[in-house]
Parts: sequence; C-alpha cells; structure tokens
Amino acid sequence: MQKLFDSLEEVYEEIVEIRRHLHANPELSFKEVNTAKYIAEFHEKLGHETKRDVGGNGVVATLKGDQPGPTVALRADFDALPIVEQTDLPFKSKNEGVMHACGHDGHTATLLGLAKVLNKMKTELQGTVVFIHQHAEELPPGGAISMIEDGCLDGVDVIFGTHLQAQMPLGEIGYRAGALQAAPDMFNIRIQGRGGHGAYPHQTIDSIAVGSQLINSLNQIVSRKINPLDSAVISVTSFVAENPYNVIADQAEMLGTVRTFKEETRALIEQEMERVVKGVCESANASYEFTYTRGYPTLINHEEETEFVAELAKKVPSVTAVKEIEPVMGGEDYAYYLQHVKGTFFFTGARNPEWEVSYPHHHPKFDIDERALLIAAKTLGLATLEYMQVHAKEVQVK
Amino acid sequence: MQKLFDSLEEVYEEIVEIRRHLHANPELSFKEVNTAKYIAEFHEKLGHETKRDVGGNGVVATLKGDQPGPTVALRADFDALPIVEQTDLPFKSKNEGVMHACGHDGHTATLLGLAKVLNKMKTELQGTVVFIHQHAEELPPGGAISMIEDGCLDGVDVIFGTHLQAQMPLGEIGYRAGALQAAPDMFNIRIQGRGGHGAYPHQTIDSIAVGSQLINSLNQIVSRKINPLDSAVISVTSFVAENPYNVIADQAEMLGTVRTFKEETRALIEQEMERVVKGVCESANASYEFTYTRGYPTLINHEEETEFVAELAKKVPSVTAVKEIEPVMGGEDYAYYLQHVKGTFFFTGARNPEWEVSYPHHHPKFDIDERALLIAAKTLGLATLEYMQVHAKEVQVK
Amino acid sequence: MQKLFDSLEEVYEEIVEIRRHLHANPELSFKEVNTAKYIAEFHEKLGHETKRDVGGNGVVATLKGDQPGPTVALRADFDALPIVEQTDLPFKSKNEGVMHACGHDGHTATLLGLAKVLNKMKTELQGTVVFIHQHAEELPPGGAISMIEDGCLDGVDVIFGTHLQAQMPLGEIGYRAGALQAAPDMFNIRIQGRGGHGAYPHQTIDSIAVGSQLINSLNQIVSRKINPLDSAVISVTSFVAENPYNVIADQAEMLGTVRTFKEETRALIEQEMERVVKGVCESANASYEFTYTRGYPTLINHEEETEFVAELAKKVPSVTAVKEIEPVMGGEDYAYYLQHVKGTFFFTGARNPEWEVSYPHHHPKFDIDERALLIAAKTLGLATLEYMQVHAKEVQVK
Amino acid sequence: MQKLFDSLEEVYEEIVEIRRHLHANPELSFKEVNTAKYIAEFHEKLGHETKRDVGGNGVVATLKGDQPGPTVALRADFDALPIVEQTDLPFKSKNEGVMHACGHDGHTATLLGLAKVLNKMKTELQGTVVFIHQHAEELPPGGAISMIEDGCLDGVDVIFGTHLQAQMPLGEIGYRAGALQAAPDMFNIRIQGRGGHGAYPHQTIDSIAVGSQLINSLNQIVSRKINPLDSAVISVTSFVAENPYNVIADQAEMLGTVRTFKEETRALIEQEMERVVKGVCESANASYEFTYTRGYPTLINHEEETEFVAELAKKVPSVTAVKEIEPVMGGEDYAYYLQHVKGTFFFTGARNPEWEVSYPHHHPKFDIDERALLIAAKTLGLATLEYMQVHAKEVQVK
Repeated sequence: MQKLFDSLEEVYEEIVEIRRHLHANPELSFKEVNTAKYIAEFHEKLGHETKRDVGGNGVVATLKGDQPGPTVALRADFDALPIVEQTDLPFKSKNEGVMHACGHDGHTATLLGLAKVLNKMKTELQGTVVFIHQHAEELPPGGAISMIEDGCLDGVDVIFGTHLQAQMPLGEIGYRAGALQAAPDMFNIRIQGRGGHGAYPHQTIDSIAVGSQLINSLNQIVSRKINPLDSAVISVTSFVAENPYNVIADQAEMLGTVRTFKEETRALIEQEMERVVKGVCESANASYEFTYTRGYPTLINHEEETEFVAELAKKVPSVTAVKEIEPVMGGEDYAYYLQHVKGTFFFTGARNPEWEVSYPHHHPKFDIDERALLIAAKTLGLATLEYMQVHAKEVQVK
Repeated sequence: MQKLFDSLEEVYEEIVEIRRHLHANPELSFKEVNTAKYIAEFHEKLGHETKRDVGGNGVVATLKGDQPGPTVALRADFDALPIVEQTDLPFKSKNEGVMHACGHDGHTATLLGLAKVLNKMKTELQGTVVFIHQHAEELPPGGAISMIEDGCLDGVDVIFGTHLQAQMPLGEIGYRAGALQAAPDMFNIRIQGRGGHGAYPHQTIDSIAVGSQLINSLNQIVSRKINPLDSAVISVTSFVAENPYNVIADQAEMLGTVRTFKEETRALIEQEMERVVKGVCESANASYEFTYTRGYPTLINHEEETEFVAELAKKVPSVTAVKEIEPVMGGEDYAYYLQHVKGTFFFTGARNPEWEVSYPHHHPKFDIDERALLIAAKTLGLATLEYMQVHAKEVQVK
Repeated sequence: MQKLFDSLEEVYEEIVEIRRHLHANPELSFKEVNTAKYIAEFHEKLGHETKRDVGGNGVVATLKGDQPGPTVALRADFDALPIVEQTDLPFKSKNEGVMHACGHDGHTATLLGLAKVLNKMKTELQGTVVFIHQHAEELPPGGAISMIEDGCLDGVDVIFGTHLQAQMPLGEIGYRAGALQAAPDMFNIRIQGRGGHGAYPHQTIDSIAVGSQLINSLNQIVSRKINPLDSAVISVTSFVAENPYNVIADQAEMLGTVRTFKEETRALIEQEMERVVKGVCESANASYEFTYTRGYPTLINHEEETEFVAELAKKVPSVTAVKEIEPVMGGEDYAYYLQHVKGTFFFTGARNPEWEVSYPHHHPKFDIDERALLIAAKTLGLATLEYMQVHAKEVQVK
Repeated sequence: MQKLFDSLEEVYEEIVEIRRHLHANPELSFKEVNTAKYIAEFHEKLGHETKRDVGGNGVVATLKGDQPGPTVALRADFDALPIVEQTDLPFKSKNEGVMHACGHDGHTATLLGLAKVLNKMKTELQGTVVFIHQHAEELPPGGAISMIEDGCLDGVDVIFGTHLQAQMPLGEIGYRAGALQAAPDMFNIRIQGRGGHGAYPHQTIDSIAVGSQLINSLNQIVSRKINPLDSAVISVTSFVAENPYNVIADQAEMLGTVRTFKEETRALIEQEMERVVKGVCESANASYEFTYTRGYPTLINHEEETEFVAELAKKVPSVTAVKEIEPVMGGEDYAYYLQHVKGTFFFTGARNPEWEVSYPHHHPKFDIDERALLIAAKTLGLATLEYMQVHAKEVQVK
C-alpha cells in the first residue's frame, strides 16, 4: 500500500504534465484520433499489450502480473466538449471551440500515471489489469457500448472507475451503492399544423398554440403520473417556430430530455408522453412526429464492490471524508460496463478549497484542482491491489 | 292613426293595472297556469275566439276585422323567473322566489291593452289579428316551438313583437334587419377520471387536472378557430368536483353556453368542442360524456318588415329616436316564428331617464318605466293597422 | 364617360406593358428607387408637375384641368415583397428574391394609364388630379404617413384608390362604408428566465414553460375579454428558444400580430396583454420585455364617397357585380389618407374565371387577370370625372 | 423473551375481543369519549396510574417496574373515521357512518393486551412503561401535539409505536430510519372574479378560466421547481364553481394537499404556490384568498432506535421478514413525539395471505388479519424489555 502511494507521488508531476498536454489538445467525441494515439503509444512504451481502435477510437491496454489472480479493469474516458474555453490557464485549449470541460483529461492522466506505477510492480502483481481508455462518453450512443461489443470486458472480473467532481471539495470521495446516475433519454417532437396569415387564425392550425398546450401537459406528467418516491425529470429544452410577425406557424420543433432511475419509470414516461402528444395534437387537429431515444442506462453500482472501495478509500492519504452521496440526474455510459461485470464508479472531489467559485462541469471556465488526480490514482490503485489480494485465492482454486 | 293612439292612451291606466297584477303574481316557465287563465278570460270577455292550452299553457286569441285583409300576429310572452324579488314596489311579487324580472308582465299587459283597443276598431279593421300569448320563453325548449306545432301561426301573414329594454332609454325604439339575437346553446361535460388519495396522484387520473386543461383548450376555440368577423361565445360557467382536501377527484362536471349567429359557426363550434374534449381526455387517459344541446335558433328579422316597422315607429308620439342597433348575444324563442312567417322583433326602451341605476334584466331589483308599455302598444298597433292597409288589396286579389 | 372608357381601352396595351415591366423589375419597400424614377419620368413626359422623393421614394404628379373644379387625389402603391417568385410568366421577376406578389405593379400601371388618358382630356377637365404614387405600403411605418407629412394631400378634396383582389372574380367591385381594413399591430415578448442543465430544472427558471403558459393566457384574451360583437385577433406567430436537448432555455422570444377595428378594442388588448405578460412572468419569477407597436390605423371609408363610387361602378362596362363586402383583417396604410381627407378605397376583382386555382396575395405563384387593370382604371377615372362635375360648382362658389 | 411471548399468547383472545369491541363502537376524532373511558378503566383495573383527558380525550397510564431503569413510552391511537362500513363482520360498526377503517382499534387492543402482560412482569421490570393512548390521529391538528403539551412525554426516554398495514403481508415488519412519513399540509384558494351573463364574457372576470390556468401552473411546481431527488406532491383535490349554464362564475373555491419530507421543500412549495396564485390571479385581474395550513411534521425515525427495533423484530416468532421500506406520502402525528424524544415507528404487516383482495386503509371494506396484533404486541413488548435491559445501567449511574 505504502509502496503504491509513494510510487504514485513520484509520478505525480508526470500525471500533471499529461493532463495539461491533453487539456491543451482536446478532441470532440468520436473524433479523438490523436488522443487515442497518444494513449496507445504511452502503453506501448510500457510494453503493455495494447489494442487500438477498440469499438471506435477506444484503446485497451493489458498488464499481466507475474502472480496469478483476477482481472481488474480500470476505465478512463478521454473525449472533450464543443465549448469555447474561457480560462486563462497556460495550457488552455489550442483547439478553438473544443475544451476538456468535464475532467476527462484528468481521468486519462490518472490512469496513465497509475499504469506506469503498476507496471513497475509487475513481479508482485497478483492478476491482470485491463486499462480501458474509452472515447466518446459525452455523446450518445457513447463509446462504452461498442468497446464492450469489441471485447474490452472479456475475461474481466471487476471494473473500477471514478469521475473528478469540481463541486466536491478536494479530499472527499463520494460513493453510492445502487443507482448513482440517471438514465438520460432524449426526445424530439415536431408539430405539423397549417400555416397562414396572422390575421386569419381560423384558416390555420396554429402550431405554437398547440405546442404551448402540449408543453403544459408534458410538464404535468412528472407531477401527476410518476410515483413521488421515484425521481424523474422531463424537460422541454428547445422550442422553435420562427416566423415573421404576421405568419402563423406551420410547424413547431421541440427537443428535450428525460431522466429516470428505474426502468418502470422510464417506460411509463415514454408511454405517457406518447399519449399526451397524441391527445393534444388530435384535440387541435394537428399531426405530429414523436421520437423518443433512449440514452445510457441508469448507472447501478454493485453493492459489495462499492462498499469495498468505500472502505479502502478511507485509507488513502489526503482523503478527508468518504461519504455516501445522493444519486445525480446526469448520465454516464460507464453504466454499460456495470451491466456486464461487477464493479463500482465513485466520485473524487476536485474543488480547490481556496477557490471562491468553482465553475460547474461543462462551463467555459471549468477547472479542477490537480491534486485530485493523485487521490484518484491512489484510490483506484489501492482498490486494484486489494481486490487482487482478496480474490487471488479464488482464482487459484478455479 | 290618431284614433289608435288616443284609444290606447285611454286604456293606459288599465294596461298599468294589468302589468302590476301580473307582476305581483308571477309564475315560472311551463307552470304559468293562472296567468294563462287570466289572459284567456280577458280575451273571452272581449268576445275573441280564444284557444287555451295551445302547445302547453299558451293562449291564442283571434280578432276578425269586418273588412277583408291580411292576418297579423302579435306575440307577447308571460312566464317569470326563479328570482327572489328585491324591490320595494307596492306590487312586488307575492310568489316568493318567482319574479317578473324580464318585463314579460309588461309585454302581456301591452298586448291585452292593445287587444281591447283593436277590438273597438273591429268594424274598420282590414284583416285579422292573432294575439299569441306565449308561455315559457325563459326556459328551453321554450313555448314557441310547441305553440307553432299546435297551429298558432296557421293563416298568419306576418308577425310583430317587441321586448322592453331596461337598458335603453324610454322613447327609443331599436331595430335590426337580419340577425338580432344569438342562438343560445348549452353543453355538459362530465370527465371521468379515477379518484384516489391526494398523496398518491400516480395511482389516479386527476379529473380536476384534466378539466383545467380542457377549459384552457375550449377557451381557445373562439380565438383560434372562429372567423374573427363572426361573433361567437363559449363560456364554461360551472365546474364542480367537490372532494375532501386529501381525495383526488374521480369526476368533474362542467356546464356552459355557446352563442352564435350563423349556422356554420354554430356547427363548427360543436365539432371543435367535441374534438377538444376527446383529445384532451385521451391525452390524460380519462373518459368523458359530452352533450351539446341546441337552444333557440338565431333570431333573424326579415328585412322588409323590419324597415316597415322602423319607419312607422318614427311616427309614434313620444318616440324620440329609432335606432339601428347591434345584435345581442342573448337568445329569444321568437326566432321560431320568424322561421315560419315574415315579421320582425324590435326593442322598446324602458329606462326611466331619471333613474340613476337601471338594473339589468334578470336582476332582483329589475324594473321598467311603465310609460314604455304605451309606446310599445302604439308601435305594435300602428304596425298592425298600416300593414293591413298596405296589404289589404293583395288579399282581395287572392 | 364613353370617351373616358374608349380612351382607356386604347391605352390598355400600354398599361399591360407597364405592369409587366414593373413586375419584372420589383423593388423592396423603402428601396424602390428605380420604380420611382420610372414613374416620375412617365409623368414628366406627360408634362405633369412632378415631385420626386416625397416623404421618401414617393412621387406626386399634378394635372391641372383647364376648367375650375375640385382636387381629386388618386393613389397607387408601388413596392414589392421579399418573396422568390415561382411563376412561369415571361415577365417573371428579374430581381431574385423580390416579387410583386400583391398587385402593386398593377395599381401603378393602372394609374399611369389613367394619367395619360386624363391628360388628353385636360381642356375639359373641371379641376385638378393629384396622382399619389406611394412607396412602401408593405412595411410599417409605410410610405403614406411621410408622404402626407410632406404635403401630398395639400389642397386635395377627395381621394380614391383601389386594390386588385386575386380572390375576387374579374368583373366584381367590392365596397364598404366604414371600417374596411383592420389596424395591424405588432408585438414582441422576450421572456428572461434562468438557463441550466435539463436534468436540474429546479435550479432554473424554464423560459419555455413560462412562454407556454403565457401563450395559453394570451390566447384567451380574445375569447374572454373582448366584446363578441367586435372583431379582434391576437396571434403569437413566432416562438424561438433554441437549445441543445439537455439545456433548459434561458430566454424565449415571441413575436405576433394584433388586428382590430375599433380604437377601444385596440387599447383594451394592449392593456390586457401587458397585464397577462406581467402576471404570468411574475407567477414564474421570470422577467420580461414587452413591446407593443401600433401599425397602420383602421381603414375607415367615408360613407358618402363610398356610396358615390359604388353607384358609379355599376356603370362601368364589364363590371358584373358591385357588392358590399365584409371587412378584412389585413391592414393598409391608405387608412392615413382617409384620416385627412374624404374618400374611399375599394376592391377590384382580378381572378380569371378560367383559372382553377387563384393563389392568394403574398404567395410565390400569385398572379392577376390583367383585364382587371382596365376595370380599375375606368372606375377610378369615372369617379374622378363625376366627382369633378358634381362638385365643380361648389368650388366656383368658394 | 420467551416469557413475554408466552404471556402475550395467553392474552391473545382477549386482545381480539377488545379489538372487536372497539371496532363495533367506533368514535370520530376529538369525539372519542367512550373509547377513552374504556381504555382508562382497563388500566385502572390493572392498578396503573391513569390520567384521563390528557390534551383532550387522551389517556396516559403508567406502569412502574420494581427495578430501576429507563422510561419507555408506547403509543396507540384510538379514533375512527367518518366512513360507512361495508363489511359483513359480526362486529361491524354499530355507529352508522363511523368506522375503524385504519386499524386504530387493533393498535389500542394490542397496547392494552401488552399492558396486561407487562403488568404481570412488574417485579422484574427494569424501568417504567408509559402507555400513551392518543385520540384524534386522523384529523389535524391531531391529538399528539396537545398530549405532549399536557405532559405525556415528561420523563420519557424513548418511544415505540407501530401501524398495522393491510397492504403488507402478515409476518412482515417494515422499518426505516430517517423520514418514514410525509408532512401532510392543506391549502385553500378562493378566486374572486366578477360574475355575469354567459353571453357577455367581456363584462366579467371568469373565475373558472382563472382557476383552470392556476391549476395548470400549480401542477408544474413539482416538475419544475422541486429537486427531482426530493419527493413532493401538490394535489388540487376540490374545485367548486357551481352556476347555471348561462351565468359566468363569480367565485371558484379550491382545496388540496401538499406532501413533503424536507422542511426546505415544504417551505419552497408554500412560497412558490403563493407566487403562482398571485401572478395568475393578477394576470386576469382577479383577486384571491390563499391559505396554507401546515399539518403534521414529517415523521423522522431515529437511526439507532430504528435499527435496535429492526434487529429485535427478527427474533419475534412468526415474523418472517424484517424489511427496510420506502417512505410513504401519508402523514402521521406520531411525528411530534419523535421531535421530543428518541424512538421509532414501524409497520406491522396485517394482510391475510389467503385474502384475494386486501382493501386499502380508509376503504369501507377495510379489514386486518388479527394475528398481526399478536406480532405487534410481541415486537413492542420485546423492544420495551430489551431497551430497559440495555439502558438500565445508564440510569443507575445517573
């Protein structure tokens, strides 16, 4: 344990360098070609068996320990967002309009630093570590699903991962067994009325009037149709029917998101939305197109593995608090891995306690306290080694 | 003409007495037994051929002039309203809870006084006068339709009638060719949701939530579906879903009225209401009952007869103004007569110019200036005599 | 009369040529420089006193008859619309994206043809003709108001004008005393909520939700607050709040039109809209900007002049029907002239009876039957000459 | 432990008799005079110090054990509901229109039976038992608050209580640390518009139209303003504006309930409702009265005591499952006790596994499996004795 921690402290400066390099060179989801190359070369230099283009731009590197034991996967995502960075950082994005505004640069740097350290501990390593470098977490359908199809979880016994949290103080680790992150779905509604002159509404089917009633009705599904003990969100986020002042809207386009934790709530909302759209449009003699697109599933942490990591986190130096946290309504395609193997996903506090403001994720001024990378690396590393130790015998028995 | 006016002035006191007698003894629509008896006896005393129980409590009296000529019908209604009178009149209603709050007492007194005068002019009368004393104007389906079915218009060439108007100054006569009064329809909507505990809305179908959305949508039919050049009203006047504070409404009952002038508008509103009720209820998975009941038709005055009366009204002493008026949204079953024979219906101003307030029709303090009865009698009488004179020859030719 | 008609028939081909020239060379409102030049040169060639740049691109030409008499103004507008023409006409617009889709090319050709004919009748002309060629009728504030300020009505006794109507059969003339065209106002509403992540609505003020409730409420002003006997339209025609699927709307922009005939209705609607916007936004803790911009006033034809022209129109060859028409909800800045001098504005049917479809005004396939130009010229010419004849003596007396 | 269980089994028949007696003689909240007398006499017979009329009809009996130790309070409520019983039970309500449809008869019988058994164990009892028989649980403000003010918790160290659950299978015990039952608040809204004739909406302020918009807006508070991770319900359960078909509503009365678990949610809802009512009414120029009445607080079980009882419940014979349950949206004034002393409230399954249907609480056919009374008595009894044993020493030390 102490050896792991010491070794990680030794590579901390390199971790920071990697993070800053990635931060300065962000790439959009599904277009992270150079980042993938950078990661792959890093592992190749370490001598890890490295697969490129896994399920897209994904990279999977494998470190086989000299001792027998289980296979532990560690996952970090590496795509960035279509945001114009507004920080004054010396390593500010050089790719105008693209920004690592969610901490994926840190996730990747953490994992690469940890890879270097674990590689050095190869002789004593009781099992195999699979480093899953995932592309395209930000953009559904995401990279996880195709990487899994492409075999990244083959032979894996357990998976661990973390997300840096700019709103959680440095030193805190947040965990939660069961549902941690909501299923984020998307919907589109196009109302087709009949346009016409603003002075003659009776000759038209006013798509804006229909849309307004629809939004009112959709906004009541959560309050009237969903069990108040279940969390659910339906947000119509976009409404576009652009016309001159004297032309009644022929069409109206709506867009929005649905967030749920339970499959039954998710299915119920889709069904009720369909019913409401149909009824309201028919009441106005308008026609419509309604598309409901499921995003990532709910991220459900496995109970045993979650408690395992939470207990270990308490032993990590500079971790000041390990807290059970509330679930969050945002989605995460790490959820797919947990549908296939046991494991957990936890949050690593990355808010510098001296910052007056810590900008939220996806904000043009988003930043993290880089010391969080060391904490993340230690926690993931400790979880890996301890899991191997606990489960090494089981494997031998097999 | 002068003879008619002089004779009417002679019976004016009697007209007032009759009006006050009727006012003190009001009877509800379809229950006007004593009033009908009083009227019939009045005509019988004059020796008029008098039919009782015409289409219900209606009374039809006929005065045949000694000279050949056309048949002119004059109509007055005689039912009262379920209102507790709040005036201090010496002839205040003796029938607690029933009140002549619309002037029908005055209409009947006018017609009886005129009957007495025309009876005296029998020898010179060039035609026949049919006095249609109609019951139940206030309550659909009204008395007119059944009286017509019972033959009250048989042989009639033209019909004249008037309504005393408490909001129009004494001395004014209002006329309008074409649509004068709207078609007043009625609707009932019962929403059947599924009741339940107020704390568990997701187990219910909330009839009040559905009803609220429905009312919002119904209130947009007029503004979005009806030609702005056409007048139309849809009013939901009653909404009842009474429950304890913690029980979600199983049902909601609505009631209301629709007013239109054109058949196409009327039909369109019924169709659109049906569509809206269906769509909104289906959008919430609720069921419903929707009943649309047509009331009286639009009262459409015949052009020639309307102008004829308007011209004559100018010759009536104490008539200070004869005005073309706007149509009114209230209904009147006089409309049925005009579907069968030519004629017109006009308004006789009955607001005492010295009153600071003139209470509207159907108000517990409603009253009229009785001098309006004399003006009404003179105008109807003059129209009768002049119509006979103008059309006497035509009849001879027949 | 016959001379006028014959002379106009002689110039008919030229009228058509002018119209086609103008049609092929349309110019947008307030940018009609070449059209104005064309018109001015035409009048100058005839020797008319011609003022250019009247209140903008307006042209006013004056023809003084040799006989004393009143001053009659005739108005034609000459701007085109930002529409891509989709006809196959040989004289299709050469100015891509601009089109005479409302008949103003025809109005101008009519007036120029008539000017040529009246010019020839100068010796017998009992008064003065002022040809008002108005720019910018399509775009508020319009050209009329500035041309009037610039003196185009100075000394004018009466004004006549017409609009070609593609929906009215060739041969029909439509007239109406009193309100003929509605006052077309415009409004803008900007709702300022507070944007945020679609998964966390409670941290936001959802501008789309607020906007939807607002539109519902605005749509009830006409049905609940306006006298059903008065015509009124409030149409929200544009609603724009464009966002990604997971970002709740910070702002929503709305745009729309109001149409009324009476000043009291117009003022009431502005007041009620203000109240509704304020109340609904406050109910959601959102702020707003509300701008109500008055457009043209209601076009109110003078009774005597309207009947005068209607009677004369019956004498025009090929006029098959002269009809009193319903008012229309569309606006027209001819309204301003009628606030200063007596006069009337009438409609000239321009639908070819053999066309299966006649596209509405402002449609990319809009067209007119050019024979309507001759009818319009004859009616305006006859009105001018007859008005002069009737009023010549009055002028002499002055 | 075994002695307790055996003794309870011996009095089981008496418990059932008591329950049936109470069931047959139900009394409404705040009117439970005879029930209170019955309970008081039962304790007096056992020689317990018994206080009547505690905070109303409440009864508090005290059993002092011969050994020193802590004071444990046990609470049972005894009021019934205004429901016409529709069962065929031989001990059906004799008080027409009043029914024990929530199991309070069982709670009381359980506690009386347990009192008898503990009384027999007096010599070995290490502390004091306070039997809190509470009136008026069903009707806010409830009996708990006044009984506490009247001293029922004086000297009490811990409180235990249970609710029989007709929807939970016999043999199950449900527990939950933290929030178990919601705070049930009540609100009244009276909209004051201006009535008038259904044909003239523009002369009125239509209270039904205003109320409908208000309900739509209120129904969006939960979906737009409340953190989706927090449970909340706002239900408008009653809407009354009763009028004839042609009279627009002068007033509309609404009633409803709010359910929350957190104080911040509760306060936020009251604030947002006030804002919405004010804004919507002002948008329509209507006035209003809004009253928000807080009901019972959220019932928050103390963690340690809850786990203590949950562990013990596993040792009770015939308990087949001890489950952590979801919170419920219904309220319970037991919440007040937990604001003053430590303790817990748990659910005892009372659904007979052979019943096809188990009617919900407050249903006219509600019934329970009486064997649940024995389980409840054993669990409460065991909790009492074990708590005394664990805490006896602490008390001695004091």
